[in-house]
Amino acid sequence: VELGVGDDCALLTPAAGQRLAVTSDLLVEGRHFLSTVAPHKLGHKALAVNLSDLAACGAEPLGFTLALALPRVDDEFLAGFASGLFALADAHGAELVGGDTTAGPLAICITAFGQVPPGQALLRSGARAGDDLWVSGTLGDARLVLEIFRGSVAMAGSGFDALRLAMEMPQPRVALGLALRGLASSAIDLSDGLAGDLRHILARSGVGATVHLDALPRSAALAAQPAALQQTCLLAGGDDYELLFTAAPAQQAAVRAAAQHSGVQVTLCGQIDAEPGFRVVDNQRQPVEGRWQGFDHFAS
Amino acid sequence: VELGVGDDCALLTPAAGQRLAVTSDLLVEGRHFLSTVAPHKLGHKALAVNLSDLAACGAEPLGFTLALALPRVDDEFLAGFASGLFALADAHGAELVGGDTTAGPLAICITAFGQVPPGQALLRSGARAGDDLWVSGTLGDARLVLEIFRGSVAMAGSGFDALRLAMEMPQPRVALGLALRGLASSAIDLSDGLAGDLRHILARSGVGATVHLDALPRSAALAAQPAALQQTCLLAGGDDYELLFTAAPAQQAAVRAAAQHSGVQVTLCGQIDAEPGFRVVDNQRQPVEGRWQGFDHFAS
Repeated sequence: VELGVGDDCALLTPAAGQRLAVTSDLLVEGRHFLSTVAPHKLGHKALAVNLSDLAACGAEPLGFTLALALPRVDDEFLAGFASGLFALADAHGAELVGGDTTAGPLAICITAFGQVPPGQALLRSGARAGDDLWVSGTLGDARLVLEIFRGSVAMAGSGFDALRLAMEMPQPRVALGLALRGLASSAIDLSDGLAGDLRHILARSGVGATVHLDALPRSAALAAQPAALQQTCLLAGGDDYELLFTAAPAQQAAVRAAAQHSGVQVTLCGQIDAEPGFRVVDNQRQPVEGRWQGFDHFAS
Repeated sequence: VELGVGDDCALLTPAAGQRLAVTSDLLVEGRHFLSTVAPHKLGHKALAVNLSDLAACGAEPLGFTLALALPRVDDEFLAGFASGLFALADAHGAELVGGDTTAGPLAICITAFGQVPPGQALLRSGARAGDDLWVSGTLGDARLVLEIFRGSVAMAGSGFDALRLAMEMPQPRVALGLALRGLASSAIDLSDGLAGDLRHILARSGVGATVHLDALPRSAALAAQPAALQQTCLLAGGDDYELLFTAAPAQQAAVRAAAQHSGVQVTLCGQIDAEPGFRVVDNQRQPVEGRWQGFDHFAS
């Protein structure tokens, strides 16, 4: 970054020959976060969802712009927000390069930049029939927290606190994304639920998939819930911010090594098929019925 | 643009050796636009304010990301918004590279990218004592429209319609910004009023300025208003989206030629002084008293 905050524009100089990866997300109160969230958690999450997109491209974070609408000047909020934001930014070497602040209903727009060598970006379009389907971390905890907030599930005390952290402070899988360059044939980050986001890979790659429901990685808290709720959270949750990716079976050992090197668990959870569409099967390979729609920001 | 809308990130390839200029603005209803604004005008303005920042850097537009919060899916709104947005984008060769849509109170966040050769960006920090102070177009019409909306000024019919267009569809001075590379010693775009934005140049450059009130360019509609209102609109208006810039006196002919080539009027309206601070004088060089504060998004 040659010139940062304080002029009309920031000036960036990507390393010679590198591609610049760009992603932008807008978070609004009541939709992406609750008004009661701690400001430092909000600062963390606002950047995390963007770094997660960079991770899904295999891009190395460089910097970001922040545009913020606030109902009023609130120094305490801003200090907390900044602490969460910069802690994550510093952990990933991402620099704040510019911004805009205005009055309005609380909204946060971050645009993040990263770099990736030519031809090495992880795209949604590279999945091939026969590829393995992998996912990082565990799925569904954020959706489970949402159900608890909605009152449809009861959970008390420290178990809930830990779960809530998964929703409020997701860890972007940046190191894993970098380690998967040259290994993964396609990747996407899970923001709208596995079923919805997998469809993006299938559509862009012109393939289908079979997902092994019982193989999907889940926390002990989610594993203790009724089967129907588990399915909803695993397949149609949102806010997971894990990486869903595909790789040729010959890469299994390399993928596991990349995950270990990145300190992130990965789980083989299905296969890419030539047959279009998306099938969920149990561990007897019998089809599981259900409505696996992604989280729709205009519904519910 | 190597890869645009539809993957986790867009991939950009700046021309070899060019710097990438980045700017981001968040527009919220009731603050930056009225709920009654025509969608195509809103689409235009949301991009225009960002292209204006690129212009103030002397950067050539490349592309932009759009993040949109909408209260509900509204095809008519979106069609109108897109028509205004893309008409302006196409006129300036800027490509939509990525985006995000969510439910929420109407808010628009655009991050725009441009390129500029190393060392040629127009910065706020280059003004020197003795430089001329220039401004493009005319000032104050957008503030006059605001006063008419507020009911403090009466104006009827077609005169108001023309004036309103100045506020709702500002024309970013991209061609002028490019033509001023190597000529202007500093530049800023006027979004918060001349007095407030000039202060940014003065602070970054470590200089002062004298502004000739009577020289400030104004429309016939504004010139017909009482003197006090004219002063407010000219100096403390907002939403002008003209370029305020400085250049050495030896460059006067070159600046006028650049403006003519760009099809934009420019006016010599003051000088940069070694003495800090900011003085407004009349055409007898007598000080004019007044409160010249920039538009504060958290006030009024």
